[in-house]
Amino acid sequence: MARFLTVVPVDEAVRTAVGLARPVGTETIPLGEADGRVLAVDVRADADLPGFARSTVDGYAVRAAETVGASETLPSLLRLKGRVAMGAGAGFALGPGECAYVPTGGEVPRGADAVVMVEYAELLGDEVLIGRPAAVGENQVLPDEDFAAGEVVVRAGRRLSPQEIGALAAVGQAEVDVRRRPVVGVISTGNEVVPVETAPGRSEVRDVNSYLCRAFAAERGCETRFYGIVRDEAGPLREALERAAAECDAVLVSGGSSKDDRDMGARTIGELGEVLVHGIALVPGKPTIIGQVGPTPVIGLPGHPASAFVVLLVVAGPLLAGLSGDKTDRVRRTRGRLVENVPSARGREDYVRVTVSAGEVRPIFSKSGLLNSLVRADGLLRVPAGREGYETGDEVEVVLF
Amino acid sequence: MARFLTVVPVDEAVRTAVGLARPVGTETIPLGEADGRVLAVDVRADADLPGFARSTVDGYAVRAAETVGASETLPSLLRLKGRVAMGAGAGFALGPGECAYVPTGGEVPRGADAVVMVEYAELLGDEVLIGRPAAVGENQVLPDEDFAAGEVVVRAGRRLSPQEIGALAAVGQAEVDVRRRPVVGVISTGNEVVPVETAPGRSEVRDVNSYLCRAFAAERGCETRFYGIVRDEAGPLREALERAAAECDAVLVSGGSSKDDRDMGARTIGELGEVLVHGIALVPGKPTIIGQVGPTPVIGLPGHPASAFVVLLVVAGPLLAGLSGDKTDRVRRTRGRLVENVPSARGREDYVRVTVSAGEVRPIFSKSGLLNSLVRADGLLRVPAGREGYETGDEVEVVLF
Repeated sequence: MARFLTVVPVDEAVRTAVGLARPVGTETIPLGEADGRVLAVDVRADADLPGFARSTVDGYAVRAAETVGASETLPSLLRLKGRVAMGAGAGFALGPGECAYVPTGGEVPRGADAVVMVEYAELLGDEVLIGRPAAVGENQVLPDEDFAAGEVVVRAGRRLSPQEIGALAAVGQAEVDVRRRPVVGVISTGNEVVPVETAPGRSEVRDVNSYLCRAFAAERGCETRFYGIVRDEAGPLREALERAAAECDAVLVSGGSSKDDRDMGARTIGELGEVLVHGIALVPGKPTIIGQVGPTPVIGLPGHPASAFVVLLVVAGPLLAGLSGDKTDRVRRTRGRLVENVPSARGREDYVRVTVSAGEVRPIFSKSGLLNSLVRADGLLRVPAGREGYETGDEVEVVLF
Repeated sequence: MARFLTVVPVDEAVRTAVGLARPVGTETIPLGEADGRVLAVDVRADADLPGFARSTVDGYAVRAAETVGASETLPSLLRLKGRVAMGAGAGFALGPGECAYVPTGGEVPRGADAVVMVEYAELLGDEVLIGRPAAVGENQVLPDEDFAAGEVVVRAGRRLSPQEIGALAAVGQAEVDVRRRPVVGVISTGNEVVPVETAPGRSEVRDVNSYLCRAFAAERGCETRFYGIVRDEAGPLREALERAAAECDAVLVSGGSSKDDRDMGARTIGELGEVLVHGIALVPGKPTIIGQVGPTPVIGLPGHPASAFVVLLVVAGPLLAGLSGDKTDRVRRTRGRLVENVPSARGREDYVRVTVSAGEVRPIFSKSGLLNSLVRADGLLRVPAGREGYETGDEVEVVLF
């Protein structure tokens, strides 16, 4: 049983957690259900896109050379060869001295190399006065200008956005290969923890962390399974953990905020598998455990919800991204100016809850056990291990919730 | 049939769209399924939280006054009255000269007003040496310090985050009242548009916009229904729109990029109901229609996917938020420095696709019909109507996708 008895730096802890994450398998699903899923393979264009010269305006397809010098007072005069209908193809080519009407999105006929907007043209019977010179290529998209056949349209590892779903539609991916949703097991521990339906007796608290962990994993595209609230005893925890590790792709065990409880959590993980990290130079979130049971990564989270949440963001997030095969940078950041000093000790990373409004970053100094600060905060200000805090007026980066 | 024949400013268009949005009804669901749903009512604390004086450290509960002047060399000597177990309650009160061991999260006994961390105390039999003075209230959370009974924990209109789900668990909301998911109908139009399964013939394109619209609405918590690809003819569009408006909470009609098609879209909406806006001072996205059929808001989106996407973000987003009762600011923004000039015309809002990397904002100048720029971009730079663009080096705000 490898076990670091001293705290490790945050980046080492994250590397350890990510190192345990083997991407889950894949499945094929309809494109209409793929929003937010992680693409498993590079998808390439099946053909040139749009596949034909396409007008980007309502206008007249012309040979640009025949509009040189054209102006309102001295327009070029061209014969109207025909009108292109949407979706029907041009069906003819332009000869010298000819032009053709093309609606936005319509095909520019062969022989033409530019389109002049209707606003700069005047139709007189079957002749058209062009009042402005056109540059070669103007107002048209070339057949392979959006994507060339074989070009990668969306890369494996992207958590698909609406825009990417649109691009996949354009290249004919009626079905897509995505990673299946990782299954995350959640266990709450603590003799003081009662189910949410229960009115807590004196010195009891409701089970917050299992809801926090499940919603966090669900937002990252995981399925979750709850293995209940287990007492701070080795037997029940061992049983729940063994079952969860066998059935899930990762397990989050929360609770155990006192030293005795934490030690029991680490001992149980160690007995069933291996503890790799026990303690991170992270505030809040120091008493975090990273280990594995069989091939399944297990993270032991602090009992305080606000601390647990920091560990979810900093450690569990990258682990779940690894399991999901998700290479999208999901972290939302913003920059702003601090309106209060934020002290910190060197040698540990501090995550301070902050509000952000109109470019002003305001720290919320609050006891780590409190939920209210977590609900009020807009994000976290990270103070790196090498810094003794930030000062009023410093421009800082905030990781938004 | 009211109808503005000239373009309206973006903010007026957004106000018009939002004005059409009546929030959908509510439903009661288990808290475990509420992540990302919109809370329908203010939820208040059912009791004080945590409900008892709670230690935030492993330590000794003391009367602070009895530790005044304590130091390592001259510690205060207190008698150990007992040890508090997690979840069991203290069951005793401290008298003068007494202290009690309390684990993190455990109850601080009556009579005590502070907790000294174990690191600053030494246990000798049934006596404890306290090596540091404690301030009143130190290392403990008061019974109503997180939330007082009756205090609002999460406000109506919040799209629930994991943290908020956690807070709702803490106050016993095993079930929550949320808005039901709005149902959004999607119609694609265009003679050139073929289903995604089809290899497009010359001058045809696959149906991108219905996938874009459905994924966009799904990401905002809506259910979507697709009413098919209809030809640019009044009959089929009228039939599809009538059905969609009757069955859905909002309808998105895409396509009609040429002037004739747009006019037909507006005419059909006008015949079935009312066109309120036809044309927005927005680039790309000018040929947008906002109207209603019966009570149902209808948005007519441009045919170019990149233009349609801007209209989704700028106009449809606020409309769907209104329908969802969602008062959460979902827009993700970041700031950065422009590395290239962005010209723009006064009097219209320009949305320029940009990449953002290491604080540098780089515009992607691209034809509006192209998908590749939409996939490559990280977000949109908005150039307000009153500005003639931005210059290299300007600090700008980017709306991230």
